[in-house]
Amino acid sequence: MTSEFDLIARYFTRPTPHATLGVGDDAALLRVSPGMELAISTDMLVSGTHFLPDTDPRKLGWKTLAVNISDLAAMGAQPRWATLALALPDADEAWLAAFADGFFKCADCYGVELVGGDTTRGPLSLSVTILGEVPQQQALRRDAARAGDDIWVSGTLGGAALGLAALQKRAALEETDLTHCLRALETPQPRVALGLALRGIAHAAIDISDGLLADLGHILERSGGGAEIYFAELPRPATVDAVLATAWGRHCLLAGGDDYELCFTAEPGQRAAIAALSQSLPLPLPLTRIGSIVAALGLRVLDAQGQPMAIEETGYDHFA
Amino acid sequence: MTSEFDLIARYFTRPTPHATLGVGDDAALLRVSPGMELAISTDMLVSGTHFLPDTDPRKLGWKTLAVNISDLAAMGAQPRWATLALALPDADEAWLAAFADGFFKCADCYGVELVGGDTTRGPLSLSVTILGEVPQQQALRRDAARAGDDIWVSGTLGGAALGLAALQKRAALEETDLTHCLRALETPQPRVALGLALRGIAHAAIDISDGLLADLGHILERSGGGAEIYFAELPRPATVDAVLATAWGRHCLLAGGDDYELCFTAEPGQRAAIAALSQSLPLPLPLTRIGSIVAALGLRVLDAQGQPMAIEETGYDHFA
Repeated sequence: MTSEFDLIARYFTRPTPHATLGVGDDAALLRVSPGMELAISTDMLVSGTHFLPDTDPRKLGWKTLAVNISDLAAMGAQPRWATLALALPDADEAWLAAFADGFFKCADCYGVELVGGDTTRGPLSLSVTILGEVPQQQALRRDAARAGDDIWVSGTLGGAALGLAALQKRAALEETDLTHCLRALETPQPRVALGLALRGIAHAAIDISDGLLADLGHILERSGGGAEIYFAELPRPATVDAVLATAWGRHCLLAGGDDYELCFTAEPGQRAAIAALSQSLPLPLPLTRIGSIVAALGLRVLDAQGQPMAIEETGYDHFA
Repeated sequence: MTSEFDLIARYFTRPTPHATLGVGDDAALLRVSPGMELAISTDMLVSGTHFLPDTDPRKLGWKTLAVNISDLAAMGAQPRWATLALALPDADEAWLAAFADGFFKCADCYGVELVGGDTTRGPLSLSVTILGEVPQQQALRRDAARAGDDIWVSGTLGGAALGLAALQKRAALEETDLTHCLRALETPQPRVALGLALRGIAHAAIDISDGLLADLGHILERSGGGAEIYFAELPRPATVDAVLATAWGRHCLLAGGDDYELCFTAEPGQRAAIAALSQSLPLPLPLTRIGSIVAALGLRVLDAQGQPMAIEETGYDHFA
């Protein structure tokens, strides 16, 4: 039977030119560049909670790393290294090979090296710790929003939630819409280039993993103040427009998780710079102004007439 | 119902004076001291695989962090920061409070700050990433053993394996022996001070988590060469002496996991320095010379007459 050490050697050991020492010792050794801070974040994904048990392992491998990279994107940090802890019910080599393939595809795409980890037996769960570098005092922190800031989001919202609904047969989508939404759900593209470009332009930033209202709420908790959101401005895939009349279409937009777009705030004086940025990124990315940070506490969603809408949505919470 | 964010705030948010930014943003921000390398290691502990489901959560909290700190001790690194990803079947606050208490007791004892993590619903499992600092090029690596080196171990071996056997009613122990063995099993003391003191003295080092033969085998794999172990010299709790006639007493000594002592190699010229070290550590710790690194491949255990013993033991492997 294949051993734990064979599995690590076979599927999870790749060259790590930017580490002093990679997989295979008690610890990896890394050098953080002079003048840089280390940004570090940990996420755990559990089968049945974060992904469907029959999820394609290749897509799961991509997503497991991508959602962690997204946390660094939201800090304006350059992702560099990761560790992976993996509990598996059995040593299913075909599954592992596909998972590793997706994981390293994402790693290669974003310049991340896997420098350590742990493989053990247990109910399927995955924990990644991601490490990156950001120049000292330039990180995009949640506590840096100021009253008067514009609120922006990248890309479109609600696609991943719609994709999940389609997979679970709670929604029927046209084929092109389904493709878009499943891609958003299964192979999210963390906005690293945007995060790097926003250093010195944005004040606060967060990635949208729990839903717009919940994640914007985290910025408000840490920064103080409140926010007004213009519902009509929220960027949406065409599909959401069609189902917007329904309560759950609105729910996908405001509280759908798993989009991994960035929500950030910046002074109105930065509007031209941000518009230019949208076009100058390696892959053009829509950046949409969706509201303002205000001094008064609370988060209000305004309709096309500027009237507050009655909103029940909150973000996803694993124990609520 | 208590939310994920409340749980994190209540049980896992403590001051982090040595982090630029601790728990509560997309990522934590850390500064590695000039001239230092970052040492990083990840372990995952799964209920039923690594610990009994009814394990006292306070002891589990200690051990979860301690086994990770032990990896840094084996590198000669100073532990600094940790992240914790936690999957829980439900939000059992009494359990969490006790777990956090044990975790932070260990953290305080070893000067570690919890800077981030994730709390989610799922079968009970725990993943810690530990970070520490070690001066550039001074880490104790597995690949640094040389033919002619002495092989040393700290403390005693086999206690944790005996403790587990007693808990599982596979062995009966006298009360003082039971206390010693359960302490070894449940609240291991990672050998950080020893690891730091061995910089410049030891060549290779590893912590004994999978059993002496398996872990020494990892040094040989990475360093090349072989080893001879003098069975009679292996340091053992009095209890193991008593059961040594049995096959499984021997098994505990050679292949019992979970001891978290250090196994290291050093030139014979360092014997006096190592003997002095044993007494000068903050808490005196027996250091025992148990064998030699040799040029010929293979790992041989020699009896009191210098004859090779027939050994079947290997280390613990989750998929073997």
